[in-house]
Amino acid sequence: MSTLPAFASVPAHARLGSRLLSATDAARLVHRQGLGATLRGLLHTLEADFRRWPDFDKAARIAHHAPEGVIELMPISDGQLYSFKFVNGHPGNTRAGLPTVMAFGVLADMHTGTPLLLSELTLSTALRTAATSVMAARALARPDSHVMAVIGNGAQSAFQALAFQHLMGIHTVRLYDIDLDATHQLMHRLGGSGLHIQACRSAEEAIHGADIVTTLTADKAQATIVHDNMVRPGMHLNAVGGDCPGKTELDPFILRRSRVFVEYEPQTRAEGELQQMENDFPVTELWQVLCRQAPGRVADGDITVFDAVGFALEDFSTLRYLHAQATAAGLLAPLDLIARPDDPKDLMGWMLHAGATHT
Amino acid sequence: MSTLPAFASVPAHARLGSRLLSATDAARLVHRQGLGATLRGLLHTLEADFRRWPDFDKAARIAHHAPEGVIELMPISDGQLYSFKFVNGHPGNTRAGLPTVMAFGVLADMHTGTPLLLSELTLSTALRTAATSVMAARALARPDSHVMAVIGNGAQSAFQALAFQHLMGIHTVRLYDIDLDATHQLMHRLGGSGLHIQACRSAEEAIHGADIVTTLTADKAQATIVHDNMVRPGMHLNAVGGDCPGKTELDPFILRRSRVFVEYEPQTRAEGELQQMENDFPVTELWQVLCRQAPGRVADGDITVFDAVGFALEDFSTLRYLHAQATAAGLLAPLDLIARPDDPKDLMGWMLHAGATHT
Repeated sequence: MSTLPAFASVPAHARLGSRLLSATDAARLVHRQGLGATLRGLLHTLEADFRRWPDFDKAARIAHHAPEGVIELMPISDGQLYSFKFVNGHPGNTRAGLPTVMAFGVLADMHTGTPLLLSELTLSTALRTAATSVMAARALARPDSHVMAVIGNGAQSAFQALAFQHLMGIHTVRLYDIDLDATHQLMHRLGGSGLHIQACRSAEEAIHGADIVTTLTADKAQATIVHDNMVRPGMHLNAVGGDCPGKTELDPFILRRSRVFVEYEPQTRAEGELQQMENDFPVTELWQVLCRQAPGRVADGDITVFDAVGFALEDFSTLRYLHAQATAAGLLAPLDLIARPDDPKDLMGWMLHAGATHT
Repeated sequence: MSTLPAFASVPAHARLGSRLLSATDAARLVHRQGLGATLRGLLHTLEADFRRWPDFDKAARIAHHAPEGVIELMPISDGQLYSFKFVNGHPGNTRAGLPTVMAFGVLADMHTGTPLLLSELTLSTALRTAATSVMAARALARPDSHVMAVIGNGAQSAFQALAFQHLMGIHTVRLYDIDLDATHQLMHRLGGSGLHIQACRSAEEAIHGADIVTTLTADKAQATIVHDNMVRPGMHLNAVGGDCPGKTELDPFILRRSRVFVEYEPQTRAEGELQQMENDFPVTELWQVLCRQAPGRVADGDITVFDAVGFALEDFSTLRYLHAQATAAGLLAPLDLIARPDDPKDLMGWMLHAGATHT
């Protein structure tokens, strides 16, 4: 337990009531800490929590679908703390000026049920997804990896590029998107980062010479973004975009040549690149590698695939990290979300009193 | 659809972003509208939504357990709107001065995934539970019911007594609790309501002569609060307290003599009085009675039981009602929960800009 920030005082937190980390204050927290330090803090919290994987009461996410998209809840608990994330996925939203993915989450105390923190998670999901990709790559990619292909240059891609630069030693990124404008915007965004940036005219060109291949395409379709013949021995594939039923990015023949690693196997079989494979296709859960219960990369010539879909534990770690850091930074605001009667058995008395007060 | 408030303009709501109804402002809303009018508005919204039951994508709630209690998520959607409730149940909380049950909820737009409303639901759950009990009693109890026994005199009991007075014509309540102090507090709370109030020394005494029996005990145990010999032909039992695995209040022989009605059958079989019965014990879902697809009370001598456990649709209706009423009353506050970049594909640009701003 020494790797965990102290939460022995959770009942005291519970008595404080609920706090809000707004979207703007989350951005302020990153600004104050620096992006690199924030990603590093997230990475360490993620690694600490993944190493105690058996402590968690896990479940696949609960989805409600509409023709335009999906809304999901992702709950998890370790018996001390509880978290869930609300997240949507609506590919057509950008046409209306809205983000494709919007998210928020709650951290609660399991001993009393008190919601401790309501936090934005739109920005933080981008940060934690990048930090999770690095966590996997540190366990699976060749340690001398310096060149990364980034296929799909949307909102998440800048976070991935900078996380791999800060935490993994990547010095060159090779960018490709079917939308050339997206690539130009990403180049602009990464200008001044110190990364060596190469715009490419095809996925094949971007992947050529890369040590790590990150796929981040957004179309909700079974698509083959990366073909088998593009992939060389020794590569690590960070497959982030294929993350819901009906959405994949990799040629299944690549998976057959590779050693495949997942977050939570039951969820990835339904949502990840694994959708394309038979139900007993062998995979390893990443936590087992982090706990040295299973091997990661064995030989320099291995092709390793992190079939990432995003798991509730990553949001648990993120909320735990944000709660500690934003508390220390004084960035949490009181949130009047839960009625707090003086006598907990007299909710009506509280209602009559609170209702008659004026702002 | 004519019974529903207009939500044709949901995408416009989505563009407005998220709004907060705080605990205090929910109490203010009830204060301004009056408790009777609020319960009536909730009742009408509940009836409208229960009558379109097949429109909803339903699921049992998702629970995470600790030794001290449980945290649950209760999601539902009709394809247009989505809602979920977060709710805990920690029977020992009152010893620490905290409520046993705390709740909040979110109403979201299924077309874009935007969270429209974050609302307190601790007070509102008490209101909606009482309104749901009345909805069932209007369909199931004898129309000439005027006397109600209230067994268990905790936080929820005042709401039940007043809802049945305002919406069902109950003029006399007969109160019993193992904790005499709880009964005295409830009598004090109901003073001035116009209800005729009788404190009783046993459940048997309270039930004697009652038309409706409401059970609201809180202990998480398989207990027999109401024995078979207390129940007379013609009674309606509003069994609210037996609402989670291992927690029941009624002698199973009562159920055998009764016609039993439930909210959502799969959930009630796991959580309600039905836990005590074989899996094919016959029950009727309440919506079928409201839609006249199944009979409610057939004869004056029937014993009817509403085996209430609380279902996600009731919170959906409540959030829909609160959203409409609090918007009209000007009681919603802006909530900076979701990052809103000018360019939805440039989340990092938003982060850099928002992070550098100062309050």
